Amino acid sequence: MKNQHIHIIKVGGNIIDDELKLSQFLTSFAAFPGKKILVHGGGKLATKLATDLNIPQQMVDGRRITDADTLKIVTMVYAGYINKNIVASLQAKNCAAIGLCGADANIIRAHKRQHPTIDYGFVGDVDGIDTKMLSVFLESGLNIVLAPLTHDGHGQLLNTNADTIAQEIAKALAEQYTVNLVYCFEKAGVLMEAEDEQTLIPIINPSLFEKLKSEKKIFAGMIPKLENAFKALESGVNKVVIGKAEAWEDLMAGRSGTIIEL
Amino acid sequence: MKNQHIHIIKVGGNIIDDELKLSQFLTSFAAFPGKKILVHGGGKLATKLATDLNIPQQMVDGRRITDADTLKIVTMVYAGYINKNIVASLQAKNCAAIGLCGADANIIRAHKRQHPTIDYGFVGDVDGIDTKMLSVFLESGLNIVLAPLTHDGHGQLLNTNADTIAQEIAKALAEQYTVNLVYCFEKAGVLMEAEDEQTLIPIINPSLFEKLKSEKKIFAGMIPKLENAFKALESGVNKVVIGKAEAWEDLMAGRSGTIIEL
Repeated sequence: MKNQHIHIIKVGGNIIDDELKLSQFLTSFAAFPGKKILVHGGGKLATKLATDLNIPQQMVDGRRITDADTLKIVTMVYAGYINKNIVASLQAKNCAAIGLCGADANIIRAHKRQHPTIDYGFVGDVDGIDTKMLSVFLESGLNIVLAPLTHDGHGQLLNTNADTIAQEIAKALAEQYTVNLVYCFEKAGVLMEAEDEQTLIPIINPSLFEKLKSEKKIFAGMIPKLENAFKALESGVNKVVIGKAEAWEDLMAGRSGTIIEL
Repeated sequence: MKNQHIHIIKVGGNIIDDELKLSQFLTSFAAFPGKKILVHGGGKLATKLATDLNIPQQMVDGRRITDADTLKIVTMVYAGYINKNIVASLQAKNCAAIGLCGADANIIRAHKRQHPTIDYGFVGDVDGIDTKMLSVFLESGLNIVLAPLTHDGHGQLLNTNADTIAQEIAKALAEQYTVNLVYCFEKAGVLMEAEDEQTLIPIINPSLFEKLKSEKKIFAGMIPKLENAFKALESGVNKVVIGKAEAWEDLMAGRSGTIIEL
């Protein structure tokens, strides 16, 4: 009975960091009809707080190494400051919202990342999603605002990539809903040239992807994102869209961004 | 149909600040049967973070003056760090928990405190509780962990006294449930002499209260707490208990602490 649609929207740090852009984005989000889950990243606020507290930050391949002090910081910033301010803003825009992290209602179970050479610290890789409780909230009319933290079921919170959380939630809810997964980021969509928005690819499917990849006509940093998007589609997600948060209406209407299809 | 019991438990800063005491308390809380709401205070963590960030803190009559920087700190510490760590700990103890603040699901609406001479800043006085959504969570088997923050419905988070939140939630849920309100604090209960636990009053009702008050046989600092407790009882709360978190089993069984009755 997949008659109901749900939109799962990941919004990245560049929007979170900009008060005006965030407010505009939340206004559009609030006005968009139907069931919605907003997964937010952390932005530069965690890094700034770490700097202010003299806690050195270490990044490996764009991932934050999360020692105990850094976990405390991201828990405060992501699940506290960012999450609750988004919820309060949405309430003001008449959008019933509830702010959660993966530990709440046991929504997202994860395990501490094991890696042969790098100790990522308190970073979690997702094991499973409890869709039953998510459905209870959604069916009660609540829009869910998710901070990128999970837990291991033994009392340990874990820092988890927001893109991954959005994708895992989308896949898990695909059994029950028609799921559209939307990644809002700083670029107009999937570009052939990273810095040239004129090279936007409006629709991409696996055969076009393979062709562009073999011709080296696709921005390399986009390849893993697209591979993940195809995996989500193979797991039953209806549609994946990538584009600019600022172009929200056009993005949601399919007039901007890149639509990724099977 | 007030056939179902619910316990609303306020736990104060002295427990929150002590890792071992907090863990023991949460073990007892998790094991206690039936529906439960835990309202937690903030403890010294917010003050410590403010000190580390060189944000001066101002207290008036034991209340924190909440300027914009301080609101950011309490939002991070209360709704982020403390709330999510309590939730993760409860999950590990097989206690289904969800961590919320007053903005989530619009649970607690408040307004910025107006005072003729003191500017409390972003401090909220409670206007109303949405018991409908609280019931949805409780009937889904979730135990609610509440951080002492509210919102004004216009996007503003507000810092709100945790004792007050516990009492307002208790009064609001009294229409639907048989509510027991439990204040866990650092003393054994209501004492005639503040520093002498041998002077514990096991049961107090309004006539005994008036008698002790007129004879000046009650610790002055306890008077407003008791007056609030009587107000809660008059609003339909079944029982108010005050005592030590460390004596949880005895407290919940009525073998320790002070029971406040009409």
